[in-house]
Amino acid sequence: MTQLSKLLESIITRANVNLREFADVEPHIRNLVPHEHFSNFYAFYALTLHHPLHFKFRESCLSGTYFLGKCDVQRSILYKSDIRGDELKRRGDMFEIDGMKIKVYSDEFIAIRDSYLLKTLVHNYSHDPENLEKFAIRNTVALHWSNIHGSPVVGCLLEPFATVDFTSAQNCVFGAHSYVQVGDLAHTYVKPGRVWVRYEGAFEFDYQFPQEVLDRYVHYEVGTCPTGIMMDYVEDRQEDFIPVYSAVNQSVSIPVPRGASLSPYAVVKGETSIDENVLVCQRAYLAEASLGHGANAQENCYIVHSRLDGYNVTAHGGKIIHAHCEANCFVGFNAFVHGTPESPLQIGKGCIVMPHTIIDASEALSIPPGTLVWGYIQNADDLRRNSVSLSRLRDFSGETEFGTMRFSGSGRAFVDAFSSRIRHILEANGAYYDPATGEGAGHAQKNNDMAFNIVQPYPAGRNKGLYPTLEISPATDDFFGDDD
Amino acid sequence: MTQLSKLLESIITRANVNLREFADVEPHIRNLVPHEHFSNFYAFYALTLHHPLHFKFRESCLSGTYFLGKCDVQRSILYKSDIRGDELKRRGDMFEIDGMKIKVYSDEFIAIRDSYLLKTLVHNYSHDPENLEKFAIRNTVALHWSNIHGSPVVGCLLEPFATVDFTSAQNCVFGAHSYVQVGDLAHTYVKPGRVWVRYEGAFEFDYQFPQEVLDRYVHYEVGTCPTGIMMDYVEDRQEDFIPVYSAVNQSVSIPVPRGASLSPYAVVKGETSIDENVLVCQRAYLAEASLGHGANAQENCYIVHSRLDGYNVTAHGGKIIHAHCEANCFVGFNAFVHGTPESPLQIGKGCIVMPHTIIDASEALSIPPGTLVWGYIQNADDLRRNSVSLSRLRDFSGETEFGTMRFSGSGRAFVDAFSSRIRHILEANGAYYDPATGEGAGHAQKNNDMAFNIVQPYPAGRNKGLYPTLEISPATDDFFGDDD
Repeated sequence: MTQLSKLLESIITRANVNLREFADVEPHIRNLVPHEHFSNFYAFYALTLHHPLHFKFRESCLSGTYFLGKCDVQRSILYKSDIRGDELKRRGDMFEIDGMKIKVYSDEFIAIRDSYLLKTLVHNYSHDPENLEKFAIRNTVALHWSNIHGSPVVGCLLEPFATVDFTSAQNCVFGAHSYVQVGDLAHTYVKPGRVWVRYEGAFEFDYQFPQEVLDRYVHYEVGTCPTGIMMDYVEDRQEDFIPVYSAVNQSVSIPVPRGASLSPYAVVKGETSIDENVLVCQRAYLAEASLGHGANAQENCYIVHSRLDGYNVTAHGGKIIHAHCEANCFVGFNAFVHGTPESPLQIGKGCIVMPHTIIDASEALSIPPGTLVWGYIQNADDLRRNSVSLSRLRDFSGETEFGTMRFSGSGRAFVDAFSSRIRHILEANGAYYDPATGEGAGHAQKNNDMAFNIVQPYPAGRNKGLYPTLEISPATDDFFGDDD
Repeated sequence: MTQLSKLLESIITRANVNLREFADVEPHIRNLVPHEHFSNFYAFYALTLHHPLHFKFRESCLSGTYFLGKCDVQRSILYKSDIRGDELKRRGDMFEIDGMKIKVYSDEFIAIRDSYLLKTLVHNYSHDPENLEKFAIRNTVALHWSNIHGSPVVGCLLEPFATVDFTSAQNCVFGAHSYVQVGDLAHTYVKPGRVWVRYEGAFEFDYQFPQEVLDRYVHYEVGTCPTGIMMDYVEDRQEDFIPVYSAVNQSVSIPVPRGASLSPYAVVKGETSIDENVLVCQRAYLAEASLGHGANAQENCYIVHSRLDGYNVTAHGGKIIHAHCEANCFVGFNAFVHGTPESPLQIGKGCIVMPHTIIDASEALSIPPGTLVWGYIQNADDLRRNSVSLSRLRDFSGETEFGTMRFSGSGRAFVDAFSSRIRHILEANGAYYDPATGEGAGHAQKNNDMAFNIVQPYPAGRNKGLYPTLEISPATDDFFGDDD
């Protein structure tokens, strides 16, 4: 038995202890990735001026995974994942919640233990006041294109395209293409295709994708790769990433204006342009795309034959095809916004496309400015049932159904929470950066001057596919004294 | 003052304390490499099944340097060097010298401290019984294309193309293109172009290159890059290495037969072929070259328009151009064996071309089998004055001049020592590997299944050009227990 096989067994055992009331992760992952594949890809981590540095990797397989920030990985299998620790709290930060102020005693780090993450995006902007110094992912299995976003997860199973967002989750199963943003969650089974946002005492948003839509777009059979239109869209473009990952110090192919940054690990094709303060993250895919001032293209997103007017957010895994997004549009995690040349999409100013929304246009569609959309939309009728104007929602309080979506609580609180979150995202990404004063710098500015370091697994033998033990920490400051 | 500037000052101070009787290293290195260059290159290290792994890098600049084996680098600047730790002694090895047996208590490692190595090759096969567990390079400055070969050096200055071979050296200066293999050396100034081999109580070989030859081939002015024909030859081919270092997991361009290995970091051009059990190391350069069974091409060597019949050694920095080397020829460190289409070279079976020999043919030359050659050779007359047949030398005992070379002691001891060393080199490189039994495996076989890891310096800021602190060690063995 190879060390890698033992590692897989060990992860199964650990995750199953937590998940014993609902799930057995073993059939999900035992034969999912041929072991051969685990030794075919290098892992890499970024060295920058702007992010505290500490990487520690032990007893793990890291194939194809990208790391940024402070990360400590032990007894885990990460396969082509993205572990992005660029919004970790720092020593000395003050954290405020419900009027309480708590001091952060040491730099926060991402600690991944006994877990299996497959093409998972981990972003660390977490809001868990109970664990300020450690962002933990433990005894957890997360499958294709799932997102763990600001969410410490312990003993969880995330099926393909599931997103756990701003939620501290313990012993939960998140079904395929489910989206959850509920603060805290324990011992809960979340059905595939549920989109659920709740702020205790303030509001609740609940939508359930019909089974037939899931079957067409994100179909998951235990132990296999997901199938369906969304997966096909991603798989059909995987080859374009090969040259990107084959070069050391890849050069950038299009002009990068002031305040913008374009990851050398993004795919850029055709007539594509980016404007000032644009952020293009690694594994973003741009083809015939135009990104206006301060727009961002986050990890695993696809922007194809589309124009974004500016200050647009395209969240992790968001896909925008044959669409024109006016300024300040938000397209959430794993949303699939798919127009065609015959049925183009127009998305008005300030619209919010909820995470996981599937718009697959069978006719030209125009979404009016200031609209919240969700669910599954093919035509104007669907759009009516799966949208509400933000101004109408803001004035609502109580319990109702807006078309296919159940809402309760304060519409104002919901709209304000989303708006402030979108503002945070744009700020953090550097959309408002002013080069004259240097104020407002965010990821778009800080992601320049990155150096990439490559780690390889053992190429053969009983450790094949495992990585050696590695620890990397900052150059000692002032080791020659301070006498200059 | 940047950290890198402080580091440079610190190295100058440390080396100068040791070298205070002869030399001030400061004018040699202060302005030699523009600081900008130190942040332009990545360092890399190999992960294999066959070499104990431990890398520790601290407070150093490692630009472009290659590491293999166990290496610990602190407060040093290594620039495009090769640190090859693949013949380090292992824990439990017994070391014999003068009838005494000494046990090696822990795996030997290369420890580089307070040193500046510029395009230097460090090979660790050391014979120093007084420091079995630590191969030390300390307070030392070594310049372009120098070799530190099995030689612990403390407080030394190696000028360009100098070689210190099987010598424990303390507080010495080695002039440009000097070659020293003398066992122990302290407080000695070795003139440029001296080729000096001595085994206390057995023999001594001594040759001095004329100044005008040095001026033409390896001219060194303090504080500048060396100039001359040998340096031009190398510099003119530097661009060919750019694509080699630009790809991750470079693929190999010619067939690699059984038992052979071709480093992905070698340059291979034109009609080039390698036979079974051939070893081609990283930074070797092959163009229109044919390497017969068990031949090797070591680091920084150039084999161009040439044929090697088999079991040939081309040592570090050896250059063979328009030559036909019959079987079992040895071409030593930094030798320059340069024929032309009009004046080709023929080197007979079992010849030994001494390290640093310069053959620059102005007419076709044929060196008879079993000949030892040295010095500077352009034509048949020169060849007579700079060679002796190995059989004649073997029969000699006493003190004499063979042409331009002074020899004293036992010819037999000298020839036997060289022959046994060449045999060791061929054995260590796997030339005699038998695929049927698996016996005789050496570097040629063990260098397959290598994975390369890339480390980058800080790209900007006050640490620009410095590398973060890095420690890499083996995957914990059997961390899941032994129950399979």
